[in-house]
Amino acid sequence: MPHPTIDQREAWQALAAHAREMRSTHLSELFAGALHRHAAFTRQAAGLTLDLSKQRWRDETLERLLDLAREAEVPEAIRGLLAGERVNRSEDRPALHTALRLPPEASLVVEGEDLVPSVHKTLERMATMVERFHAGQWRGATGRAIRDVVNLGVGGSDLGPLMVTHALADYRPQGVHTIEVHFASTMDGSQLADYLARLNPETTLFVLSSKSFTTIDTLSNARTAQDWLMGRLMGDNREEGVDAELVMRQHFIGVSASPEKMNEWGIAEDHQLAFWEWVGGRYSLWGAIGLPIALMVGMPHFRELLAGAHAMDRHFSEAPLVDNLPVLLALAGIWNVNFLDIRAHSILPYDGRLEFFAAYLEQLEMESNGKSVTHDGRGVGYSTCPVLWGQLGPNAQHAFYQLLHQGTQAVECDFIAPLLRYDEVEDSATRAHLKSQHRLALANCFAQSRVLMLGDEAIEDDGPRPAHKRYRGNQPSSTLLLDRLTPATLGSLIALYEHKVFVQARIWDINPFDQWGVELGKKIAGETQRILEHQADIADMDDSTRGLIEAVWAAERNA
Amino acid sequence: MPHPTIDQREAWQALAAHAREMRSTHLSELFAGALHRHAAFTRQAAGLTLDLSKQRWRDETLERLLDLAREAEVPEAIRGLLAGERVNRSEDRPALHTALRLPPEASLVVEGEDLVPSVHKTLERMATMVERFHAGQWRGATGRAIRDVVNLGVGGSDLGPLMVTHALADYRPQGVHTIEVHFASTMDGSQLADYLARLNPETTLFVLSSKSFTTIDTLSNARTAQDWLMGRLMGDNREEGVDAELVMRQHFIGVSASPEKMNEWGIAEDHQLAFWEWVGGRYSLWGAIGLPIALMVGMPHFRELLAGAHAMDRHFSEAPLVDNLPVLLALAGIWNVNFLDIRAHSILPYDGRLEFFAAYLEQLEMESNGKSVTHDGRGVGYSTCPVLWGQLGPNAQHAFYQLLHQGTQAVECDFIAPLLRYDEVEDSATRAHLKSQHRLALANCFAQSRVLMLGDEAIEDDGPRPAHKRYRGNQPSSTLLLDRLTPATLGSLIALYEHKVFVQARIWDINPFDQWGVELGKKIAGETQRILEHQADIADMDDSTRGLIEAVWAAERNA
Repeated sequence: MPHPTIDQREAWQALAAHAREMRSTHLSELFAGALHRHAAFTRQAAGLTLDLSKQRWRDETLERLLDLAREAEVPEAIRGLLAGERVNRSEDRPALHTALRLPPEASLVVEGEDLVPSVHKTLERMATMVERFHAGQWRGATGRAIRDVVNLGVGGSDLGPLMVTHALADYRPQGVHTIEVHFASTMDGSQLADYLARLNPETTLFVLSSKSFTTIDTLSNARTAQDWLMGRLMGDNREEGVDAELVMRQHFIGVSASPEKMNEWGIAEDHQLAFWEWVGGRYSLWGAIGLPIALMVGMPHFRELLAGAHAMDRHFSEAPLVDNLPVLLALAGIWNVNFLDIRAHSILPYDGRLEFFAAYLEQLEMESNGKSVTHDGRGVGYSTCPVLWGQLGPNAQHAFYQLLHQGTQAVECDFIAPLLRYDEVEDSATRAHLKSQHRLALANCFAQSRVLMLGDEAIEDDGPRPAHKRYRGNQPSSTLLLDRLTPATLGSLIALYEHKVFVQARIWDINPFDQWGVELGKKIAGETQRILEHQADIADMDDSTRGLIEAVWAAERNA
Repeated sequence: MPHPTIDQREAWQALAAHAREMRSTHLSELFAGALHRHAAFTRQAAGLTLDLSKQRWRDETLERLLDLAREAEVPEAIRGLLAGERVNRSEDRPALHTALRLPPEASLVVEGEDLVPSVHKTLERMATMVERFHAGQWRGATGRAIRDVVNLGVGGSDLGPLMVTHALADYRPQGVHTIEVHFASTMDGSQLADYLARLNPETTLFVLSSKSFTTIDTLSNARTAQDWLMGRLMGDNREEGVDAELVMRQHFIGVSASPEKMNEWGIAEDHQLAFWEWVGGRYSLWGAIGLPIALMVGMPHFRELLAGAHAMDRHFSEAPLVDNLPVLLALAGIWNVNFLDIRAHSILPYDGRLEFFAAYLEQLEMESNGKSVTHDGRGVGYSTCPVLWGQLGPNAQHAFYQLLHQGTQAVECDFIAPLLRYDEVEDSATRAHLKSQHRLALANCFAQSRVLMLGDEAIEDDGPRPAHKRYRGNQPSSTLLLDRLTPATLGSLIALYEHKVFVQARIWDINPFDQWGVELGKKIAGETQRILEHQADIADMDDSTRGLIEAVWAAERNA
């Protein structure tokens, strides 16, 4: 007989019973009934403060959720993850993004090999490259120093570096040759075409970032970029000595787990940064995929990012469950999704520098936990990953908060903000101005989570109001405060969510490290493209796909 | 006795009964059972083709949904909207965004006044302004021609212009003085601080866009911008004759429904563009709020955008329900949300130029229909607006499509793509390259909707696969093809969604034109800010808010 699934276990059943009672309890009652609720549900670690008091739970709920975590052997899973066990079972390999941020003096022996030295060897190679750029010594084929670096990558090879470079733009090093970093990801050439129109090929370098080095989105952009460079640098007026080999060598860096494929494509061997099969794409910004980050903020800041993530790894490994930030954040999510039937989750940073954080988490959470099959191949009988989306909080207030306040959907929200900001602005008048804008943002952040929680009760009663001016409240939220937004706290923030995802996956008994759902689409896309190009038969397609393809053909005929 | 709510009517009940049978029918069965399903469920209008054959419905479903639309008096509602009746009942005014795109020869008399002449007077004023910029004759205080225009606005004063300028970047007019358009929206000063660091105050102008002209996000950015201009242009080395009045006059344009407030702020009277109370913020890009669009693409293209929207308005007004694109798109949504319990909706454009289209729709749909009270003040007993989010499709394939394919959440998807692209690229090699990238994007678009529909059946059977490589399919989607992405088709695309939202609101019996859910948050934010600034008493706050505010104070003390 197979072992019972998680929803058949006692801890789950107890929670289900408890939920029947909690579902009718309004958040405002929970606050009315407890004096020190903020202190009781707030925890700190690695420069972060997490306030979970606005979740629709009480002490007993959390105790039962911790029982569930123990029942699902979360502590054992954490140990296994960090020790390099083969936690990615469908692909039979470990998931060792945490190894990428171990300090040099550490040691992690996995299947007989200490990984730390090779991790730091890659970091050293990155450092050497970054130094060349920042000294103005990485030159294009015509001898001019590279100024613009365009990252060609998509998914994990795009969202992490994009999000972090945007978040840490204040941390550019002083006194170095400035490198501007850009990102082109979409397969239709849109973004790339923009860059090609405004960049100078003599001073532009492309980083080709693809774990497999077979991602067609990235390779099709890379071909377009290559043609552009060759056409511009080797045209009729070409300078003495500029040939294809020199262009390839000076204008391309490759980042991949496949050196063979990089060789085939023509990336010079000493301009290849290799990484490991045991790093998932969406967990890869900590190593060579993070090169654009290091090019922008410099290696010392990049190492602080790693140190911040490592601090969260240690906390995750060492803190008891009841004080463990990733575990608590995960349990809040489980409670909402599985017991309160809240199927949507909104990410709302109150700091413009975190503009791409929601898009980053959309991949991290939905690609990791958008699964419905347990490790032993059974279909789950419960919900897994909710739909997760977000936007800068202050902007979303003028957009979709209406639905949060007065719509019919229950939504869990994560509010994220730094406590302090703008201290380093030199001009005192501007500093005062900007600090007051930061306080304005904080005030809005706190006020919104309060209204979402209390609804009408948040307002002093100013007489009877019509129904369309009433707010039911009771939307649960977490508030996550960073001491400041620095490379270190950003590192721990990202690691917090990585580990949250892992804990949820463990409880749901799914594999957060594979992504079979994307493979099929790739396969079918090739087939469809061949039909579109008249190289294969349309007859096997369904009637809708046939109709759509014929619409393209008709448009092309009439163009 | 109050009239029965929509879910108590016969048409709704009939759909509920029909849904019980349809819920267990897989999309692949629907395709297997009908020969010409694509043709049967595809409609065209105003440069758009809408394929609804991958919705989980059949002829009978659509007939019953059309009954529901008639029961809800959708045809009468359409007439009322376009005629200028007071459809925004909670604010007792009409919603006349469609009037903004009437051609000059039209006439629309609302409550005794023909609106068309004043609409076109504003367009003429915009045209005059745009011409001055494009002739290089709009000069800053020191006499240099303005080159950079920064739009300060948020929500409806940001998302529409931002989305459209990005989508129509190929349509810059030739041979004019180029104006670069930028957008700063977040109240924390992040984006604005970036621009101030790189723009030249002598050649930079700010457009202050705010319907009420009281939006604190925008006004706080505007104050920072004003200080920057004054400090830089009137510092110790100021030029002869540059004074505060000249700076205000030459570097600010105001767009608002409140001329008084613009006067108070110091906007020169002839640099004010006024609009009407009867245009909702999220429906306002068609008039003065669209100034940044016109500055980028020129007035002729801006007028084509209006003409495209007007073509959709006419279709909406004239086409029978069964061929009416906005009505059909709305009914597909109603079917999914209310009868198949699908509470999430993803917007997936396969064209990088539509990068901000999902964010735009998030506001349009969730702010309009994130409501739960009927016109006569009763709480609804059914779901209204689903959670709506999106991303460029090709990028989302590498991010959250995993959840669409193998997660546990049902999600409706809208796939959007132009049939043709890149015909105007001059260099033939580059054109061929880019056209093939466009076809690659189309192939992926069609392949993904096919896999989402059929699941495993989309693949030729290559032997038994483990459970984690199986796909259940049955996710419904619409595919929306634009002949090309032009100002006109973009106009009709936006108008299509505006009217879809209106039809759904009519069926749900809610008001899509108010947004009371955002008002309360604004009020509480002021109160919270006063406490943060030690100007009010913290004692009235809940325990969590107190804890969060005290954390800020502690951080500031220790900074």
